[in-house]
Amino acid sequence: MQGKILIVDPIATNRIMLKVKLASAFFGVLQAGTLAEALEITRSQGPDLIISAMDLPDGSAADLCRRLSDRPRGGPVAVLALAGENDRTTRMAALEAGVQDVLVRPFDETLLLSRVRSLIRAFNAEADLRFRDDADRALGFAEPEMPFGPQGDFVLVGQDSARLQRWSIALRPLLGGRVRLAGGSDVMSERVIATAPDVFVLVIDGTVVRPEDNLRLISALRATARTRHAGILVLQTVADAALAASALDLGADDLMTDGFDAGELALRLRTLLRRKRMTENLRHTIRSGLRAASLDPLTSLYNRRYAMPHLTKLADQAQGAGRPLAVMVCDLDHFKRINDLFGHASGDAALVQVADRLRGALRPADLAARIGGEEFMIVMPGLTLPEARQAAGRLCNLIGSRPFDLPGSATPVRITISIGMAMASIPPAVAEPGHARVSPQERGSRLMEEADRALYAAKVKGRNQVELGRPAA
Amino acid sequence: MQGKILIVDPIATNRIMLKVKLASAFFGVLQAGTLAEALEITRSQGPDLIISAMDLPDGSAADLCRRLSDRPRGGPVAVLALAGENDRTTRMAALEAGVQDVLVRPFDETLLLSRVRSLIRAFNAEADLRFRDDADRALGFAEPEMPFGPQGDFVLVGQDSARLQRWSIALRPLLGGRVRLAGGSDVMSERVIATAPDVFVLVIDGTVVRPEDNLRLISALRATARTRHAGILVLQTVADAALAASALDLGADDLMTDGFDAGELALRLRTLLRRKRMTENLRHTIRSGLRAASLDPLTSLYNRRYAMPHLTKLADQAQGAGRPLAVMVCDLDHFKRINDLFGHASGDAALVQVADRLRGALRPADLAARIGGEEFMIVMPGLTLPEARQAAGRLCNLIGSRPFDLPGSATPVRITISIGMAMASIPPAVAEPGHARVSPQERGSRLMEEADRALYAAKVKGRNQVELGRPAA
Repeated sequence: MQGKILIVDPIATNRIMLKVKLASAFFGVLQAGTLAEALEITRSQGPDLIISAMDLPDGSAADLCRRLSDRPRGGPVAVLALAGENDRTTRMAALEAGVQDVLVRPFDETLLLSRVRSLIRAFNAEADLRFRDDADRALGFAEPEMPFGPQGDFVLVGQDSARLQRWSIALRPLLGGRVRLAGGSDVMSERVIATAPDVFVLVIDGTVVRPEDNLRLISALRATARTRHAGILVLQTVADAALAASALDLGADDLMTDGFDAGELALRLRTLLRRKRMTENLRHTIRSGLRAASLDPLTSLYNRRYAMPHLTKLADQAQGAGRPLAVMVCDLDHFKRINDLFGHASGDAALVQVADRLRGALRPADLAARIGGEEFMIVMPGLTLPEARQAAGRLCNLIGSRPFDLPGSATPVRITISIGMAMASIPPAVAEPGHARVSPQERGSRLMEEADRALYAAKVKGRNQVELGRPAA
Repeated sequence: MQGKILIVDPIATNRIMLKVKLASAFFGVLQAGTLAEALEITRSQGPDLIISAMDLPDGSAADLCRRLSDRPRGGPVAVLALAGENDRTTRMAALEAGVQDVLVRPFDETLLLSRVRSLIRAFNAEADLRFRDDADRALGFAEPEMPFGPQGDFVLVGQDSARLQRWSIALRPLLGGRVRLAGGSDVMSERVIATAPDVFVLVIDGTVVRPEDNLRLISALRATARTRHAGILVLQTVADAALAASALDLGADDLMTDGFDAGELALRLRTLLRRKRMTENLRHTIRSGLRAASLDPLTSLYNRRYAMPHLTKLADQAQGAGRPLAVMVCDLDHFKRINDLFGHASGDAALVQVADRLRGALRPADLAARIGGEEFMIVMPGLTLPEARQAAGRLCNLIGSRPFDLPGSATPVRITISIGMAMASIPPAVAEPGHARVSPQERGSRLMEEADRALYAAKVKGRNQVELGRPAA
């Protein structure tokens, strides 16, 4: 099944004719005769797309669209309307309400199927970003707000620059934002795409000798990093259903087959802009969610979950490149006393400030993580043993030499750290004959254990010092 | 710029001719004359695609591919090879080494550009999943292993079922996994796609009357939830460069223009399968990363970061639906004693076990989160005040009535919790004239504050009990 489509039409024969067409293309079909039924079926069955007659006994396709967006968890199900006649006022009202497009009966079958595929493709692409099955978990913590980002950056693409110029003058007051022009041949140039425009309008003339070139442009836009998430609207000055269907199949998002209409184009462009901003937000949400998964919320250093596999990777890279690597485990001395004397908030402040000082002393390639309550790990690639000793001594001194201002204490508080250090041996310890090669994971965890033992030794020797570990026998 | 392409060819005029073609399509072009130069430029400039002559002074395109995959952080940069003659042995060796495709000079320019766009599109789609700029952060904690998932599920699609049958018999021993057949008209049927096949082979005959139908099939596969991430290979029994270019533009991943060759097809299918498994893994990594971002690592309950906005949402939904909502804040009584008496590990074990008991007592629609060291939040939608009181009492009893087995203590330890509860008032407190309506965020945080105050009252009254809050004046 290609997807589940809900047909809404009060006339049963209309529903059946459409159902036959869709079913033969292997779409699953649901049916409703009224707006109320459509809402009920949408709620219970979750169709991927709704195709609705413009006029329903208890409302219109526009009303249906409005009611759908009222739902508390407004899913992104799209509505395609079928109208009996080509009436601009009705069409504009439907588009305003959020209807994706209005097709006029009798409609071209190929074009209808391409439109349906295009909308379902968009629906699924968005579902990918929403991680539908995990939606509650993954998005609950950062449901994207309805986006009101910066104003749009629109590019009109076509051969006839005088005409484009006139159109852009008509569009600008309706759109806000930036409306620019490009010829078909320079759309992909730096001049045009350096700013990653939001929406492209590709004007396809009936007179163009090779309309395929315009279609190739769609794939070029979809392939290119800076434009692959842009909206694409194809505007035909002469209707050509086959070409329109191909444009949708290649990745165009929207279509106008009846030539230029400033009001309608502006409306459709605003819709495309809004959709693009929303998916940008979803992508941003995923990014920040992933970042949060790797960070310790208190200190903003990496957390243990992130740090351990990363150590493995760094150890593996160092081994591969034949370069040394220093692993340090740092522990705050007598940390419990701070909590007991000045309270929990004070202990937290100490951890934050220690983390800040450590972070400030590291190079971009170094890794710093909080791997336990008052325990930090620092990994420094490329340092020789003398350099690593010196670096560790410097860190120790950085913390111990200057007291900390903590809430709960009137005077600055002296804090020290102990450091246990392990070096990835270069060349690696020669494998005894008959011994298996050590895996990267194994190598990483051995380094940690060695640093941990060294830390213990530093504590025993009186704290506020660095101790170098020895590989276990 | 559509993307950065590195041309590797020892003959300068070859490089220049190709460069002119690519630059006029607005690709950025880098050049190298040898394998060594190519490696160096790849490292320093990070091209999006490499087009290499088959024979280089210091190796071959296959060698280049092998050396690239040796890199410690092997990016997914693809290599396209250009050969002087159509030699199967060389081509197979190149494909084995990981070269994406071998084009034979003189090549069709349109097809070359479509191939280039297709590979760059794949590169960018994968970069989206890798979150390239955040790669270190986002993926370090779960670098996907080289995938050896279940064996592949392959579907051969074509008109001539007897021929397909013969081909599948030749393929099976080379491929492993499942090789099935489908006619062009039933590819999208449940029979075929219910299992979400891994790779489709679309056979396009020279004799077919409407090859567009085969192309439409590509868009259908790309639109459909179960097949949109599948690999698609188009196999032409009669070479047709224009049709091949269109297939790539529509979303096909790979192409064979010289008819059936079991060995080569099997090799290409294995590559497509591997790539699909890898992107599946990346998607899985993102999913699990997002999940981790919402969970408390110790108890696996939701964390505070997730819980607060989720409370907002639940409160908003309850309000919208006119249903009540209970918010409970639970705190372990005298938790510090457990840590002090039996050690930190024991305290952690107590938190885990308390969390488990709470979780076990909730319905799927309820929310349970750890919002502080020993503090939990429970949100129960749809409960009336008497029901909520009863539920809270039950939770209190569930913890206090049965002691806990903790490491560090020879005998079971009694633990109790105190609960502060707040009810979202239905109907909502009538807004005084002149007062603004309360925002959902505000409503959520007021509920929390109210529950917090009630918790304090429960503690003051002697702990191990439930106290109901009153809205602040």
